[in-house]
Amino acid sequence: MNWTVYLSGEIHTNWREQIKQGAESHGLAINFISAVTDHEASDAAGDLLGSEDSNYWRDHKSAKVNAIRNRVLVEKCDIAVVRFGDKYKQWNAAFDAGYLAALGKPYITLHDEAIIHPLKEVDAAAMAWATTPEQVVEILLYTISQK
Amino acid sequence: MNWTVYLSGEIHTNWREQIKQGAESHGLAINFISAVTDHEASDAAGDLLGSEDSNYWRDHKSAKVNAIRNRVLVEKCDIAVVRFGDKYKQWNAAFDAGYLAALGKPYITLHDEAIIHPLKEVDAAAMAWATTPEQVVEILLYTISQK
Amino acid sequence: MNWTVYLSGEIHTNWREQIKQGAESHGLAINFISAVTDHEASDAAGDLLGSEDSNYWRDHKSAKVNAIRNRVLVEKCDIAVVRFGDKYKQWNAAFDAGYLAALGKPYITLHDEAIIHPLKEVDAAAMAWATTPEQVVEILLYTISQK
Amino acid sequence: MNWTVYLSGEIHTNWREQIKQGAESHGLAINFISAVTDHEASDAAGDLLGSEDSNYWRDHKSAKVNAIRNRVLVEKCDIAVVRFGDKYKQWNAAFDAGYLAALGKPYITLHDEAIIHPLKEVDAAAMAWATTPEQVVEILLYTISQK
Amino acid sequence: MNWTVYLSGEIHTNWREQIKQGAESHGLAINFISAVTDHEASDAAGDLLGSEDSNYWRDHKSAKVNAIRNRVLVEKCDIAVVRFGDKYKQWNAAFDAGYLAALGKPYITLHDEAIIHPLKEVDAAAMAWATTPEQVVEILLYTISQK
Amino acid sequence: MNWTVYLSGEIHTNWREQIKQGAESHGLAINFISAVTDHEASDAAGDLLGSEDSNYWRDHKSAKVNAIRNRVLVEKCDIAVVRFGDKYKQWNAAFDAGYLAALGKPYITLHDEAIIHPLKEVDAAAMAWATTPEQVVEILLYTISQK
Amino acid sequence: MNWTVYLSGEIHTNWREQIKQGAESHGLAINFISAVTDHEASDAAGDLLGSEDSNYWRDHKSAKVNAIRNRVLVEKCDIAVVRFGDKYKQWNAAFDAGYLAALGKPYITLHDEAIIHPLKEVDAAAMAWATTPEQVVEILLYTISQK
Amino acid sequence: MNWTVYLSGEIHTNWREQIKQGAESHGLAINFISAVTDHEASDAAGDLLGSEDSNYWRDHKSAKVNAIRNRVLVEKCDIAVVRFGDKYKQWNAAFDAGYLAALGKPYITLHDEAIIHPLKEVDAAAMAWATTPEQVVEILLYTISQK
Repeated sequence: MNWTVYLSGEIHTNWREQIKQGAESHGLAINFISAVTDHEASDAAGDLLGSEDSNYWRDHKSAKVNAIRNRVLVEKCDIAVVRFGDKYKQWNAAFDAGYLAALGKPYITLHDEAIIHPLKEVDAAAMAWATTPEQVVEILLYTISQK
Repeated sequence: MNWTVYLSGEIHTNWREQIKQGAESHGLAINFISAVTDHEASDAAGDLLGSEDSNYWRDHKSAKVNAIRNRVLVEKCDIAVVRFGDKYKQWNAAFDAGYLAALGKPYITLHDEAIIHPLKEVDAAAMAWATTPEQVVEILLYTISQK
Repeated sequence: MNWTVYLSGEIHTNWREQIKQGAESHGLAINFISAVTDHEASDAAGDLLGSEDSNYWRDHKSAKVNAIRNRVLVEKCDIAVVRFGDKYKQWNAAFDAGYLAALGKPYITLHDEAIIHPLKEVDAAAMAWATTPEQVVEILLYTISQK
Repeated sequence: MNWTVYLSGEIHTNWREQIKQGAESHGLAINFISAVTDHEASDAAGDLLGSEDSNYWRDHKSAKVNAIRNRVLVEKCDIAVVRFGDKYKQWNAAFDAGYLAALGKPYITLHDEAIIHPLKEVDAAAMAWATTPEQVVEILLYTISQK
Repeated sequence: MNWTVYLSGEIHTNWREQIKQGAESHGLAINFISAVTDHEASDAAGDLLGSEDSNYWRDHKSAKVNAIRNRVLVEKCDIAVVRFGDKYKQWNAAFDAGYLAALGKPYITLHDEAIIHPLKEVDAAAMAWATTPEQVVEILLYTISQK
Repeated sequence: MNWTVYLSGEIHTNWREQIKQGAESHGLAINFISAVTDHEASDAAGDLLGSEDSNYWRDHKSAKVNAIRNRVLVEKCDIAVVRFGDKYKQWNAAFDAGYLAALGKPYITLHDEAIIHPLKEVDAAAMAWATTPEQVVEILLYTISQK
Repeated sequence: MNWTVYLSGEIHTNWREQIKQGAESHGLAINFISAVTDHEASDAAGDLLGSEDSNYWRDHKSAKVNAIRNRVLVEKCDIAVVRFGDKYKQWNAAFDAGYLAALGKPYITLHDEAIIHPLKEVDAAAMAWATTPEQVVEILLYTISQK
Repeated sequence: MNWTVYLSGEIHTNWREQIKQGAESHGLAINFISAVTDHEASDAAGDLLGSEDSNYWRDHKSAKVNAIRNRVLVEKCDIAVVRFGDKYKQWNAAFDAGYLAALGKPYITLHDEAIIHPLKEVDAAAMAWATTPEQVVEILLYTISQK
């Protein structure tokens, strides 16, 4: 059986790479998928359709172009990991978590202890809360390989 | 036809009251529903089931007790208003927005211009972005009463 | 049992009034619902949220504000009537028909013989094709009152 | 991951070929699917089941035979492109858009600026509006290949 | 709580009346709904939309007009009773049973012992098989009133 | 807003009455619904359809007649309480919990500490675990009345 | 793209073979699936679980064992062909048609002109009515191969 | 066509191996999937995320980590076998059965005659009740291979 894991959220640290490498080192056959993680490219996703004077509409167009990808990935994944860093608002990550919860897709949150309280609703709908990419890898290893 | 409007998000300003009063002043027959907005009561929602040593589990229990109400409200509403203030993480509001989007329920965001950029994914899935409770009332008035 | 009938499409003739009066004259207990039919009001639905320089974004905002109402009505109706007149593109009516078809809601088309060919896909998913409001009333009368 | 893209709408210009060639020139692994685009064959799709005296029933039969294919394609696609040309009613394209919207499938509209206004409801539910096949290819390239 | 019971199938005996009277005699608050049971009216349901030369299209039009009602009833009912008599093909009753099964709606079949074998697939998806209207009434009484 | 609460599980103690009385003493407007709780009546639910020699088929018929009611109640409830006592297998209660979980309906489990371990999967999908009917009443009070 | 076609209904003539051979002769890559068509094997499907004294329960057990296969096939197919012969009740075929209709799966009916009237509801929900296996093959050829 | 069969329930006897070997001996191409069956590993599934003082939370964490796998398997399977042994509460097996029933997935129960009565609700929603792994293999053989 193939497993598809959607990696959602923070784009400023290399947690995605750590999870992918960890999974690879265990020989796990996982298809990792992810939103665009190049911040500038993501913000400019809609620019190819013409420039905008208003910040709101520029953001709007880019967010929708990004959503083409993200909606498909959310529908296709078996499991998701939703990562919250210690900076920025990261409302898109919480939005993804809500979307996943409504679809009944199991997800794991990945965040520090310092932000337990503001994430309590997001964690309440999660299947696990991890604090390190290694823990996520261990959960994936257990989920996929344990007899 | 009765309309049920779910008011989600920020609990530190009186935006809910302003919308309710505005709707009432126009004679709109709206059933407004909302998560618990008493911050202390909300944080303590799970305490009646026994105290917890760990902050994580106290938050977890309370968030789940609150979710009993919130899941039902999200399913029952016709329209939602999701409010983001200028303080706090408010990930629960973004979570609600994602949940609503997945269910195909139309929602209006209510927030200042200053946070357009971090809310671009949440706004992209919304039907309207308002900056004042009065605008929300006008949208509801139009939606419900316009011939 | 109460019946809710959504009247979608053309806004330049009084077909909605004819159906409502016909239903009333037969004493049918139908809750008729409809998109905003005041053309100017509909085009200006988003203006209350601020003016736009670009025609595209003005239309976009208004169409989304109107969609708040229309999505709820489409979900709430039992039956729909989708009317195509002999002028204008009326893509919103065909869009509604596709949405209704995907939800499995039965709808009746109302249009002249002259436009059978371009409407063949819309008619193919309909439960009936009527050419006059009187016929629609007769179908509703049969549907609701026939023993 | 494989992507399936449904190309819906206008059949009188070669926009489908342009998109396919553009995708191929970028090495994108896309499975393009489409309704029957041979106009005569499409109109005659039901003739094999016997001839009809009435234009309505001939169209009806053909539209339904075509719907066998189109319903399956709409369900199978990840993304759709819905093209509106400057001629004809093209209600089938708007019908497809409504169907896609109800299923929550992201779609891109492809049309000229001249028809922004009548397409505002269709565009409001779209994830992007493109004016050239090249822009569509760029969106697909970004969606599928951007890191 | 109100219960809505859809009575589907045979129209040549008075089993519907027997069930309604039995329910009434027990004071059960049931909203009974039903397809049109006047055979001639049902066959002629589409005639108001114009006459047809071909039997197939006359039947087709009438069956679709009847489907407006039946689809709504199937969606609205809590429970259904599907009756098979000893005459005629009654494929519409079996069609209704399949539709109900796919929606997960519990239904009771009502038929004689003589047709157990051809009805085995329909019975296998049913919640009960009754041979008399009195038994159906007893099941409804138990379902609604038993403590 | 009206709330419908389904009380599932153990039938040998009066926990249902305690919850109903507690809710009433707080003036909560709750519509409590429940499977048949008269053990003998429940076991004999199918007997009206004829006696059976085999225990298996007698149980089968009765379980299906009971399912007519229970499926409707599970679909209609907003919230459920699933009670596990200290005796008997009570697989029907766990079955209900799984059904509720799949539908995304929030439920509260009610059981002693002694059976935490075997109920861990059922509790993991629950929104709260209560040990007394009074706690359930408090949760309902909070859910419905807290501002 | 692979197509899966479910062949449902009559088992006493070789229409399935004709369709398969026709498809093969055109080089169509279709995965044909079907209920068990060996009448005796089908009637005895449940016998391996123990014999039954009652005809009803023997049929019941066998019909349910067969349903394991049929439910999966109905869910997996893209298109179905539902065949009605001139003998027997064939309620299982009409049941399948209702199930397919509720799932929104396009199906083709295959039957003689003589039984148009009793099949009008089944045909009304179908996408095409064919009278010969050759016509079905032509529809499949058109659906899958036409440009 | 590939078949995926989910083996749920009892972990203290080798019934899973018997079914797998039986299927293999018949050359059936079945993808068998299963929850973690190593009791200690399953109980400790959440330990990698940190130790807990409370038994409840340790069980809770582990049950949720296990649910990541089990939810995906339940969604992916075509058919399930739910096994109840003669020891332990096995509420997780009944929970799985309820979840499967709500999704409309056909399942087979596997248990001794001695526990027919307490399993009557679980059996009522099943497609077959087997008492030996050999019978399950025979059902799978019939389901997959019978012409």
